[in-house]
Amino acid sequence: MVLSEETRENERARIAELVLDLVKERGAEVPFATAINESGVSRARFEQIFIDYDDLFDAIAQSWLKPHMAAMEEVLETDLPPNRKLYEFFRRRFVISRDRFREDPEFFTNICEMGAANFERVRSYVDLADHYQCELIAEAQAEGYFAGLEIDEALSLINQMVSNYTVPDSLIYLGEKLTEQKLARIVDTMFIGLSAEAGGEATGVNTIRIAT
Amino acid sequence: MVLSEETRENERARIAELVLDLVKERGAEVPFATAINESGVSRARFEQIFIDYDDLFDAIAQSWLKPHMAAMEEVLETDLPPNRKLYEFFRRRFVISRDRFREDPEFFTNICEMGAANFERVRSYVDLADHYQCELIAEAQAEGYFAGLEIDEALSLINQMVSNYTVPDSLIYLGEKLTEQKLARIVDTMFIGLSAEAGGEATGVNTIRIAT
Repeated sequence: MVLSEETRENERARIAELVLDLVKERGAEVPFATAINESGVSRARFEQIFIDYDDLFDAIAQSWLKPHMAAMEEVLETDLPPNRKLYEFFRRRFVISRDRFREDPEFFTNICEMGAANFERVRSYVDLADHYQCELIAEAQAEGYFAGLEIDEALSLINQMVSNYTVPDSLIYLGEKLTEQKLARIVDTMFIGLSAEAGGEATGVNTIRIAT
Repeated sequence: MVLSEETRENERARIAELVLDLVKERGAEVPFATAINESGVSRARFEQIFIDYDDLFDAIAQSWLKPHMAAMEEVLETDLPPNRKLYEFFRRRFVISRDRFREDPEFFTNICEMGAANFERVRSYVDLADHYQCELIAEAQAEGYFAGLEIDEALSLINQMVSNYTVPDSLIYLGEKLTEQKLARIVDTMFIGLSAEAGGEATGVNTIRIAT
């Protein structure tokens, strides 16, 4: 029997959720064979739904990252000023991850390890987040922020400065040291201070220094 | 035979270097028993020098982090303005790590993994770096930077914004995306923008917004 596209999509989502539940229960990554056994469908049917483990992992990542995707898309559609928008862009995803971490740190850690081990499958989400972030940077630059920086430069600098709030593993190491208030301070600090002119003072390239 | 304190210190340094060489050669952490066998001294003598693996690891960390410690102490003693000083405080250690990473990425990665697995033994170095950084923050605040922030708040915010340049593992993930120019921009951005006032704009706590 050939699956309809709709049934296949529904089955992918259902089994991805099921595998996430199994990871939570067992405290370990679930092998492909176990996923087949636990899926409630025949091996032949399973292999119509997922070609291989990578394909299954794609569905798991899609399921896990769905709230993050929704949060980013919501923020992009708002009519907030650029600094509020960039803050919300990071904050909402951070809160989703933090709530998950607080609810079950062990499960969260396992998911992070799975993400690291299958990073190539997660890269498209990182790229999409970067793509959205570039839109926000362009909007900010239209209002005079991040002056003189190429979008890619601004993207890289911003990513480096907020990485503890976007890389989920940071929660494992820093936990309650990561707060929304600090994130807001970091975002404002970037909006106030980040431009192509920043850098000269610290490196001492300028030979004359205005007394402060 | 009881070892003199000087002999013991010299032997600790010698064996720590030897173990680092073995890690490099073998591409794996060196167990205590192997360290004993390779040390060129008897087990009884070895156990006078190192009580256990933790004690050996302390000597390895001391050896590995010696250039970082020297760099921090040198910067603290300079008479540079606060922004130059904080930049150099991060830059010099970053360059040491980057050079080591470029020279032998696999060895560097193994050392990072050893550090993560024995983090409690490395914590005192992190604490000391924080302590030095607090001195630099106090000097900067005396000149009006980071206004209104408690030293601990400023420390945490700065650490979060530059963490990719201080946590050595970042080199493994970000490699050439980490540059001295970006670090300089980040440091200047903090000096321009970071204060107790930062945060209100991004969170939208203020109800009236001045047109920009």
